[in-house]
Amino acid sequence: MRETKVYIQDDFWNGYSELVRQTVIPYQWEALNDRIEGAEPSHAIRNFRIAAGLKEGEFGGFVFQDSDLAKWLEAVGFSLRHHPDPELEKIADDVIDLIGQAQHENGYLNTYYTIKEPGKQWTNLYEAHELYCAGHMIEAAVAYFEATGKRKLLDIVCRFADLIDNQFGTKPGQIRGYCGHQEIELALVKLYRVTGEQRYVNLSRYFIDERGSKPNYFFEEWERRGRTSYWVQGTTSEPNLEMYQSHLPVREQSAAVGHSVRAVYMYSAMADLARLTGDAKLREACERLWANTTGKQMYITGGIGSTHLGEAFSFDYDLPNDTVYAETCASIGLIFWARRMLQIEAKSEYADVMERALYNNVLGSMSKDGKHFFYVNPLEVWPDASAKNPDRHHVKAVRQKWFGCSCCPPNVARLLSSLSDYIYDVSDDGKTVYAHLFIGSEVSFELAGRSVTLRQRSELPWNGKVEFEVSIPDGGDGAEFELALRVPGWFQSRLPVMKVNGETQNYRVDNGYAKAEQIWSEGDRVEWLLPLETKLIAAHPLIRADAGKAAIQRGPLVYCVEEADNVTPLSSFSLAEEPKLTESFVADLLDGCVIVEGDGLVVDDSVWSEGQPYQPLKDQTRPVRFKAIPYYLWGNRQPGEMSVWLRS
Amino acid sequence: MRETKVYIQDDFWNGYSELVRQTVIPYQWEALNDRIEGAEPSHAIRNFRIAAGLKEGEFGGFVFQDSDLAKWLEAVGFSLRHHPDPELEKIADDVIDLIGQAQHENGYLNTYYTIKEPGKQWTNLYEAHELYCAGHMIEAAVAYFEATGKRKLLDIVCRFADLIDNQFGTKPGQIRGYCGHQEIELALVKLYRVTGEQRYVNLSRYFIDERGSKPNYFFEEWERRGRTSYWVQGTTSEPNLEMYQSHLPVREQSAAVGHSVRAVYMYSAMADLARLTGDAKLREACERLWANTTGKQMYITGGIGSTHLGEAFSFDYDLPNDTVYAETCASIGLIFWARRMLQIEAKSEYADVMERALYNNVLGSMSKDGKHFFYVNPLEVWPDASAKNPDRHHVKAVRQKWFGCSCCPPNVARLLSSLSDYIYDVSDDGKTVYAHLFIGSEVSFELAGRSVTLRQRSELPWNGKVEFEVSIPDGGDGAEFELALRVPGWFQSRLPVMKVNGETQNYRVDNGYAKAEQIWSEGDRVEWLLPLETKLIAAHPLIRADAGKAAIQRGPLVYCVEEADNVTPLSSFSLAEEPKLTESFVADLLDGCVIVEGDGLVVDDSVWSEGQPYQPLKDQTRPVRFKAIPYYLWGNRQPGEMSVWLRS
Repeated sequence: MRETKVYIQDDFWNGYSELVRQTVIPYQWEALNDRIEGAEPSHAIRNFRIAAGLKEGEFGGFVFQDSDLAKWLEAVGFSLRHHPDPELEKIADDVIDLIGQAQHENGYLNTYYTIKEPGKQWTNLYEAHELYCAGHMIEAAVAYFEATGKRKLLDIVCRFADLIDNQFGTKPGQIRGYCGHQEIELALVKLYRVTGEQRYVNLSRYFIDERGSKPNYFFEEWERRGRTSYWVQGTTSEPNLEMYQSHLPVREQSAAVGHSVRAVYMYSAMADLARLTGDAKLREACERLWANTTGKQMYITGGIGSTHLGEAFSFDYDLPNDTVYAETCASIGLIFWARRMLQIEAKSEYADVMERALYNNVLGSMSKDGKHFFYVNPLEVWPDASAKNPDRHHVKAVRQKWFGCSCCPPNVARLLSSLSDYIYDVSDDGKTVYAHLFIGSEVSFELAGRSVTLRQRSELPWNGKVEFEVSIPDGGDGAEFELALRVPGWFQSRLPVMKVNGETQNYRVDNGYAKAEQIWSEGDRVEWLLPLETKLIAAHPLIRADAGKAAIQRGPLVYCVEEADNVTPLSSFSLAEEPKLTESFVADLLDGCVIVEGDGLVVDDSVWSEGQPYQPLKDQTRPVRFKAIPYYLWGNRQPGEMSVWLRS
Repeated sequence: MRETKVYIQDDFWNGYSELVRQTVIPYQWEALNDRIEGAEPSHAIRNFRIAAGLKEGEFGGFVFQDSDLAKWLEAVGFSLRHHPDPELEKIADDVIDLIGQAQHENGYLNTYYTIKEPGKQWTNLYEAHELYCAGHMIEAAVAYFEATGKRKLLDIVCRFADLIDNQFGTKPGQIRGYCGHQEIELALVKLYRVTGEQRYVNLSRYFIDERGSKPNYFFEEWERRGRTSYWVQGTTSEPNLEMYQSHLPVREQSAAVGHSVRAVYMYSAMADLARLTGDAKLREACERLWANTTGKQMYITGGIGSTHLGEAFSFDYDLPNDTVYAETCASIGLIFWARRMLQIEAKSEYADVMERALYNNVLGSMSKDGKHFFYVNPLEVWPDASAKNPDRHHVKAVRQKWFGCSCCPPNVARLLSSLSDYIYDVSDDGKTVYAHLFIGSEVSFELAGRSVTLRQRSELPWNGKVEFEVSIPDGGDGAEFELALRVPGWFQSRLPVMKVNGETQNYRVDNGYAKAEQIWSEGDRVEWLLPLETKLIAAHPLIRADAGKAAIQRGPLVYCVEEADNVTPLSSFSLAEEPKLTESFVADLLDGCVIVEGDGLVVDDSVWSEGQPYQPLKDQTRPVRFKAIPYYLWGNRQPGEMSVWLRS
């Protein structure tokens, strides 16, 4: 894809990038420094200070604690790209100095192995996240370099990557292993992008190619470690290869299994490598895994991962709403993957999933104040059950301040602060400009030596009006290119209307993109009028958890009902045969949102006595009007029940 | 209650007692001796041989492994009562000799502390089940003595009970503790029954009274143990008092919490003591806990325990069908408790619950061959989920041979072989004869110096015809007593018809019992004609898991649908508005049973493509006829989906 410059200017999304800039990033900096009262300490900065020899003390937090700082730095890099902030940059420069001081002579960088188990580097790839942490530091370095042009962190990670390249591989004396938590694979591709060093792609491909080969590295390593584990005392049972997606060579994998974040990070790297190397088998594996993940193992909110045990996928069509996992990081990884699939081939289904995960699972994971987060994003919440049934303790009814394992909040920050990277693609030949997402923004790219700018205005998610305006600042004759606008997969009954300079235009749809090809001139305007119908959605009959139920979707937004607006228990409610859905923008609700109301029935509990658990079935309902709000806004009022799926 | 002698002679139940006698007891004997191929070894007999000094070796199995042998012996005792079997009695006598050899000089008896931790007796009441094992051995001794008149085991346990009585209590030098797993409390009441020794009741009452008092014994003990645990290495978190029902004095407890077997064993002892001592506060606590357990925390199958974590109750109305626990032992304990509540006060609701648990959860736990058992008794099974979603690994789709923790199979055996104890009560004054259960049988009791016999014939569960015939073998004038026949709480639209010697009789209903009072003569016949209507049952609206669903019940039997007879996924099925239920006896299905068929609708999946998880809701059903079988028979054909609750 051709290089672009993108700036977001959007009523809906500006609030989020500002929240990240003004609240999330500063708040997380406080958290990394253990200064959030009532939250578990992060230890991240402290660990680096100890590793740098500036402080005495023990390592604190998880073995992968370094990655929290890396993800924060990456978010800072993204934020500085569009919002210069000398004060923040100074903090970042200082912490980069600290990172440099913690780096070993030979390039090695990891505070856990520096402080706690020196000499034991690379002995527990299965569990210890060394390459994972390296990957996040590489991503941070790339983002920071791209934003500021400063090479210090980039140099640090290049030295580390060169050490890794030297120590890992198939040559004699090299470690023929790979990381238990995939991440470095996609990071190395980014490092290649800014450095142009092919060896980083080769190293990434080595990790991907080696994974799942026989004899299995994790088994051998486990035996060498004396069958011990970082997590449990004593000897342990054998490595769980499916959990870490190393049960088969990646090209032979066909269903998403195991820890869902690991999975989608790996699939992202696979997609990168398939694109860069033209590896057809790898691309086929990506497409197969994509079809399985999004066709059979994805919640309607774009969440993935059906069980908290292993934070993992379970199997096809197993999507329980109550014991769900749907980790925030997994949806973010799904967005990373979708983004890369789009770069292989612009097909709207990739962007549809990207949008679904973004507007629902990911946005919903953060509170409106930017200081509280869900790790698990349920589709059904009964607060008493979360509190009193241990099978649901992982499902929190209110967002938490910060987590002991705090992967999600910084992941949200880095995604939202780099959202401009997810909107457009311009084909290598410059002939096609794809708009994947409808977010107010400006994209500039080079076309035949001239700079072309496209300005998008969007009223999403509340209204479907989208407009593009062409600008060719250099002037001259018109620019010939094809504008490819995604036709969203929102289950609408009508196609969007395209108007060019006010005239309705016929268009062809190609891979889910509406194509408008012409020679564009300064000031040309394309209106893209998306129908925003409120739809009742059913799940595939094999998804047992949703049988007899319907969800509400309007445009990209999935809706939910909350106790604050409705009768409880929510399960006593069902949709009327003709629910007569209406929609209205309510300015004073949750900072303004479109709500959906409709007719339903509620069980009349007056015929039940308290101690009578069962009695003959009677038709005992009364009509009721229900109110649904966008899912991403749930849990911002008093705690209560919530449900995405309604009995229909 | 006055003493009775009861013999079962019943087409339905004889098969079970014969199965227990001819299959379960011999099979379990093999299991106790580690001779079942492919099943985990029990170690129970082996432990006793080692403790007796007859063999070298390490202790094997769980800390409470002794109780398996005790429960088996108790079942043997019950079986010998009605079925003399010299060969079996010889085996039992020999193993009782072995038990005697394993007993210490001072009366102490426990193979774990004899073999593995000598000198550490009574240091971990919280976890180590010493008093629990003692309780089961006492129960075994009572049953064996009552069946055979042989005192050897009774003497063994009396010596042990006397040691316990000496070592536990509030006097100086005594241990002021109680068992982490309640059981000895109810056993001591039985020991009192056969020995007449009041001190055993006092000891039981001490354990019940002391429980939950402050300072909490389990906390103090945990500190003394250096905060260690039998179950986990290293130091452990503080005792979970709710889990062991020691969070409050028992008289202050109002909701069933914690490990469900522990709970109902304790409630059983509380009921015993309330009856024996006339303790009003204790009785009120029993009634309160009963109302909570059966009114808010019981599955329609009579199962209790909503989570496998801790095998525990969760909280009111939380009754998930898929992640359910509903342990077999817990339902058996519920039956014990119901039986004792009936002895306090003959109210039909106690017998209703007893019957519900017996005919559904408990019977369903055993395969028709008597060799396979469910530990967990789900109301909904999706075999793939049991195999592939770790949240449901505890829910087995097929019955297992024998369990490492094998509490359930011997518990089933001892209940089924003592079922004759659950059918009748005769009031202390001899004036009222209660028939709680409708099981073909003969009950004899003394009335004014004469023996009276009542013969019950029952066609349950398939037909509702029940008949009682009076016999006064000694002759003489008529016997004046009141026959109190339970009016079953099966949600029938009509009351049962009572005929005395062929004449329809009006009757009054008192606490759920129909009373027929007269002077009875030899040969008098009472027909008790129970309507057996097939009913659709709804759950209380607060039971969220059953919202919008109905179950089928006919008489005491709850029904379920199985994949073998129906469309899958079962969740794609819903009941028609008028399901037109029909019933028919099918002689060649599962050895003969009444099935229920009806009209329903099934989602037409032809409008769905494989990779399309969500699409707009359409009315897309086709009519289908479904077939339901009694729940207790599920899982006796090929493995497949099963569901008790149907969408309605």
